[in-house]
Amino acid sequence: MAVVTERGSSKPCAFCAIVEGRASAREVFRSEDFVAFLDAHPVFPGHVLMVPTLHVQTYDELPLDLAAPWLSTSQALQRAVEKAMDADGALLLINNVVSQSVPHLHLHVIPRSKNDGLRFWLGPRHSYKSAEEADAVAAAIRAALASADFSDPHPG
Amino acid sequence: MAVVTERGSSKPCAFCAIVEGRASAREVFRSEDFVAFLDAHPVFPGHVLMVPTLHVQTYDELPLDLAAPWLSTSQALQRAVEKAMDADGALLLINNVVSQSVPHLHLHVIPRSKNDGLRFWLGPRHSYKSAEEADAVAAAIRAALASADFSDPHPG
Repeated sequence: MAVVTERGSSKPCAFCAIVEGRASAREVFRSEDFVAFLDAHPVFPGHVLMVPTLHVQTYDELPLDLAAPWLSTSQALQRAVEKAMDADGALLLINNVVSQSVPHLHLHVIPRSKNDGLRFWLGPRHSYKSAEEADAVAAAIRAALASADFSDPHPG
Repeated sequence: MAVVTERGSSKPCAFCAIVEGRASAREVFRSEDFVAFLDAHPVFPGHVLMVPTLHVQTYDELPLDLAAPWLSTSQALQRAVEKAMDADGALLLINNVVSQSVPHLHLHVIPRSKNDGLRFWLGPRHSYKSAEEADAVAAAIRAALASADFSDPHPG
């Protein structure tokens, strides 16, 4: 499937190739809606990627009628990865556009253990410079949420 | 609400306090099911946390009947944060147990820009040592998925 979505690309898609069986991967799950497989270069062994069979680039493009299978499948994957790898927990992560290596939505499910040595670094954190700055940021997000742009998050 | 879930804690919960109005936060969204507010120590300004009003600790504990509002609300937040902060994309992230600072499920929505200087570091990646190792890991995850543990992900 090479659907060109709002943010999507029409380039050949590495994950569509896996979905369609044209490229190999170590699959751990397959349904009509989702395929999950090992990341070939894991942060830790058992690092899995879950992709929709429908080609969308970003999370906000996932159709709402996939909400229930998206949640139940990703929850089952989280528990299965934790159990199979005897992990204490799991990191779930989606990069949208920036740091997104393949322009096909993929959820990372990464097993974590308390002594795994992973310093989960997201850059230094800083408080807002002032209450006014924080208030302004919150107001801008509220305004964006209220705008007509989101009245129909799934146009077409 | 101080429900003690399978993985949950009965300690006073900082996010339940926000949900219940006993602690202040810069809220950007509130519904019956979810509250979203600014992270006080953002990776970047506009970093938002979305929490269910129901106290569950981890993602796999989120009830399936919240699947549709979870997806639509988080998608709207992603788009709103991107728009409000004029960002190129967004990182969505959930820490389960390990690196989870507050034991109440929270989705991080972090605006990203192409030149934001965030080297998104997850530790060095390594390929599997052998095809056999990778095959065994995939088989273990498939077995865990197939096990009875996940026949009812929402017991009780």
